[in-house]
Order: sequence, then C-alpha cells, then structure tokens
Amino acid sequence: MRFLEACNRQPVDCTPVWFMRQAGRYMAEYRALRKKHTILDICRSPELAVEVTLQPVERLGVDAAILFSDLLVPLVPMGFSLEFIEGIGPQLEPAIASEKDVAGMRGLEPTEDLGFVLEAIRLLRGHLEGKIPLIGFAGAPFTLASYLIEGGPSRSFEKTKALMHTEPRIWHQLASKLAHSIKDYLLAQIGAGAQAVQLFDSWVGALSPEDYRALVLPHSRFVLREVSKAGVPVIHFGTGASGILELIKEAGGSVIGLDWRIDLDKGWERVGEESAIQGNMDPQLLFAPIDVVRERADDILSRAGGRPGHIFNLGHGILPGTPVEAVKTLVEHVHQVTSS
Amino acid sequence: MRFLEACNRQPVDCTPVWFMRQAGRYMAEYRALRKKHTILDICRSPELAVEVTLQPVERLGVDAAILFSDLLVPLVPMGFSLEFIEGIGPQLEPAIASEKDVAGMRGLEPTEDLGFVLEAIRLLRGHLEGKIPLIGFAGAPFTLASYLIEGGPSRSFEKTKALMHTEPRIWHQLASKLAHSIKDYLLAQIGAGAQAVQLFDSWVGALSPEDYRALVLPHSRFVLREVSKAGVPVIHFGTGASGILELIKEAGGSVIGLDWRIDLDKGWERVGEESAIQGNMDPQLLFAPIDVVRERADDILSRAGGRPGHIFNLGHGILPGTPVEAVKTLVEHVHQVTSS
Repeated sequence: MRFLEACNRQPVDCTPVWFMRQAGRYMAEYRALRKKHTILDICRSPELAVEVTLQPVERLGVDAAILFSDLLVPLVPMGFSLEFIEGIGPQLEPAIASEKDVAGMRGLEPTEDLGFVLEAIRLLRGHLEGKIPLIGFAGAPFTLASYLIEGGPSRSFEKTKALMHTEPRIWHQLASKLAHSIKDYLLAQIGAGAQAVQLFDSWVGALSPEDYRALVLPHSRFVLREVSKAGVPVIHFGTGASGILELIKEAGGSVIGLDWRIDLDKGWERVGEESAIQGNMDPQLLFAPIDVVRERADDILSRAGGRPGHIFNLGHGILPGTPVEAVKTLVEHVHQVTSS
Repeated sequence: MRFLEACNRQPVDCTPVWFMRQAGRYMAEYRALRKKHTILDICRSPELAVEVTLQPVERLGVDAAILFSDLLVPLVPMGFSLEFIEGIGPQLEPAIASEKDVAGMRGLEPTEDLGFVLEAIRLLRGHLEGKIPLIGFAGAPFTLASYLIEGGPSRSFEKTKALMHTEPRIWHQLASKLAHSIKDYLLAQIGAGAQAVQLFDSWVGALSPEDYRALVLPHSRFVLREVSKAGVPVIHFGTGASGILELIKEAGGSVIGLDWRIDLDKGWERVGEESAIQGNMDPQLLFAPIDVVRERADDILSRAGGRPGHIFNLGHGILPGTPVEAVKTLVEHVHQVTSS
C-alpha cells in the first residue's frame, strides 16, 4: 500500500494522497448525515463514524482513510463537558486553572472510555479489506492543554501562556497527564488496527521556540517515542511551525507534516532526509480555477523531486465549502503526473 | 542616536529598544484620552496624535518614538469608509471585488489627504528635539488589500486568496495601486521629518511562499525600493513569516523585523548579516513574572550576540492589559545588560 511505503521512504508507483478532514462538511453526504446527528453523536457511534470515514474514500480515490473523530473527544472521559457551538467552536468545561484542577483530571482508560473509537477502527479495517490503510490520530499535549485552559479556541492563548510562564510546575503536570493519556489512546488505536497515526499540534504555531523547547517538546517527545515503539508510521504535524521545524523533528515522528507556509523542499531540508514528509498545499487553493490547482500541485511535486517519502496532502484540513470536484481532480492529477 | 545607528549596523553604546504599539490601550494615559475621543479622532488631530505618541516616550525610556496612527487611515481618502467596532475590529466599505471597484479607487495625495499625519510628524520632531528619532509607518500592499477585499479582519483570507488565484490581473491592479499610494505616503512622512519608516505586513503569514513570490513580493519590493531612495532606514516586518524570511528580505528593507516564532539567531542567519534585525520577544511574555521576562530578554540578546544591528522589540504589538511596569523594566534591563 503506497501510503505506508511512502511513510517508510520506500519507492512507490505514484505519490500517495490523502487529506486532513477529507471527511467533513464540504461533502454533501456528510452534511446530510449531520442533519440527523450531532458531531459528537457521529464520533460516539461506531457505525456512523465508519460511514463518514468511508464517504471520501470511494468518492475521491485517496490512498488512506483517516478515522472520523474529533481531537477533543478523549477529553470528555477525562472529566470535561464538550459542546460544539455553531460559529464559535468547541466549548469545554470546567477550564483548568490550578493544581487542584489538574489533580482532579481522570487519566484516560481507552478501552473503557473510548471503546466506540476502537470499535470503529476494527469495523473500518474490515470495510477497507486491506485496500488502503487506516490512519488513527490524537491531539498533541500543547493543543489539548490549550483547549482545557482557554475553555475553547483562542487567538492569543493568553491564559495558556500565562500558566506556562507563571506556573510551569502546574503546566508540566497538566501536559504530562495529557501526554500519558494521549500515548495510551494512540497505542489503543494501533492495537485496534490503525496502521499509522498522526499527532496533531494544531496550535503550536502560537509559541516561541523557547516555549516549545522548554515546556512542550518533552511532552510531545514522550508521546511520539512511546507510540513509535508500536512499529507503525507516526506522523507529526504542527500548524504555523515553520520557525520551529527542527524542534518538531527533534520531538519525533517518522513523517513530518508541513503546513503551506514554507516551500516543501526547504521544509524537508530542515527536518532532514531521514524523515518522510507530508504536505503541503494551501487548502484555500482548492477554491481556485482547476488549472491553478494543477500548477501548484506540480510545483509541490517538483519540490519533492521524486524522492521516496513524500505523501501529498494539504497544509491543513479541507475547508467547508471546498468543491468536491477540485479535490477529486487533485487526487487524479497527483497520481497521474507521478506515475512511473 | 542609538536606534538609527543600530539600523545602520553601527556599534552602539547599548541595544536600542522600542515597541510596536508602544502607545495604546495598555497605558492609563491613553485609555483616559480614549474616553473622550475615538481612535480616528486621535489619528486625525495632530495635537492628540502627538500627545499619544509621546505618552510612552518619557514613561518607558524607549529609544525611538513611533507616530500614533492606524494602518487603515490612508484608505479613507482613497474612497473607503472606516469604522472601528468594539470586539470585531475595523470595518471598511465598500469591499473590493471587481476591476471596476479597483478602477474607482482614488490614488492617495498625501499632502492634501493626510496633512494631519504630516503635521503630527512635524510637531513631534519639535517635541523630541533630536533626543530620540521618530519612526513613520504604513501597511504593506498585501495587508491593506486584504482589509479592502475582506471588508475587515479575517482568519482565512478566503476572499483575498480567491481574488488572487482567480483574477490575478485584478489583484495586481489593486496591489499596484496600493503600492503607489503607500510609497507616496511613506515618502511624504519622511519629507515631513520621519527618520525611519516601517512597512507592516501584518497578515502575510497567511500566504504560501508561491503566493508571496508571484503575487505580493513585486508590490512590496516596489514600495521598499522607492522609499529606500530617501536614505533613511526602512524596516520590513511581517507576522508569521518564518517560512518566507528569505523572500521578505528579497522584497527589501534595511532592517528585517522578526516575530517571536523563530530564534533570533536563526532568523538573522536566514536574512543575512547585511541586514539589521529587529525583535523578537513574544508580547504575551510581558504578562509573566519579571524574572521570566528578564531571562527571555537575555536569551534573545545572547542570540543577537552583541553583533551591531540588533534593535530589541517584541515580535508583534504590545497587547492590551500588558503591565506598564513590566515594559519599563524590560527597557531598563536591555539597556543595562548590553551597556558596554
């Protein structure tokens, strides 16, 4: 399967393609299902999660499926209420502010707490019948911690950074507790059948290198190192991380995901050729005329230079409103021009 | 004056410091004035703009004053209405969407249209009496264009990128018209007495290198090249630009401003030692205990390594709510530890 081969930097018949958020709001099939079910209902029902995960697989011809779920799902059994509010985003309660709050968090027991995720993975492996691999995922300690401290999405991460700088001991307790739970969650996903996993550090671009180095890297490294022992490819993806790519690499992962804010060849050079690389088209480009989409894909592919170890993806998730036809054409185009 | 000397990479008695948004909401003096006047009133009254510009100068002991104004002020005489809405930000009307819209924009005549800015600069030069230099500024073509196309601030710059990718000819007309007006505006500020100018490309971090190279760089380069002919230091600052620093440098400016998302030494290496460098502490750090502020300042200064050409600044504007005492202590600390 070419996705797994590329992750292991082996030669492939053509460059594999998948997309972050390839299942989601831009697809009519998904929107139809969402009329009847909430996001959390879909995440919690193995059958619905399977249905949504498979929606883009046939339709787009991608080279990997990624489990449909949400980064914040594992926080619920850890003791937080989660609600998605239209136009605002996820809201988590109670917010973490003190040592007592951190001490009160439950550690995750994936089999008990998130059996529905593991069941969805088992069902998906059956459905996919070895045709394309299944990717599992989790949020990285910093990204999940920021949601818990801010109580939702944030622009400036004011409270998160205040805790990091003012109470580093409490910060480390929180990040460490999250890291242990994330590690267990990813290992459980692999145990259930995930053939690769991705660690999403979606908000890491808010940090200075010094904050990342001292306060975040040790926790991400713990997760990535422990999970790597399971022997499947581990993708490490941060958004807005062009300034700290060497540190992202140092934290770990056999595949480094790039966002679109750096030339793929420069990014690959900075993380080193011993890593595979994933990315990195601007998701907004899928709204452009199809000739422009093809042209930019060619630019990315030429920067990858045909070296083994490139997985084509966007530099972030597919945006709502993206034309499905453009996504499908992009997959075909990448396959076609890289076919040897 | 050590700020200008550092801009020219000459040796200085100690590292100069100033802050983006050093005049603003975090100061009680400013908040008091804002109870009586709107932001636009302050920008449009030379006396009030002078008062606000000078507020931090005595209080903080900074090494440069920066004219108090707003990036969007020059857009008003170009034919747009501008309103600042609490909690949302600036709103501009009408939004630019077509070739006709671009054709309808007035070119800026700084002397006629923005005489109040030039008058504030003249008054400020008198007040500052050659003690510290005065910096003028303007928004870069991409950042101003994005406001005009989106009608206000944006997260994903959907409309801006759609215009760039779908109607590149109209995009270039718009960016070029803005570039000519910005150039005239900065030259007029220099003519009135500004001793250095900064071009702010606040939103450039939304772009891929390819978009920047093809659609933005030529217009920023035009501004920076023409303005450089006036012989004063030109600071070029982009936010979130760690992935495209070489291109920011290629566009021009004798001083490159770094945000906080990259180690200062790595950023300086990438733009090259023939540029002076400005930056780059995370503004959020000013909420940390003062020991942490000092420690992080020391880290930045040690990365600058005592080489001529470092101007200490934050990696973005001072945030509302920042403790004034922390800012003042930071200025003293930088001066003290770099005094030779």
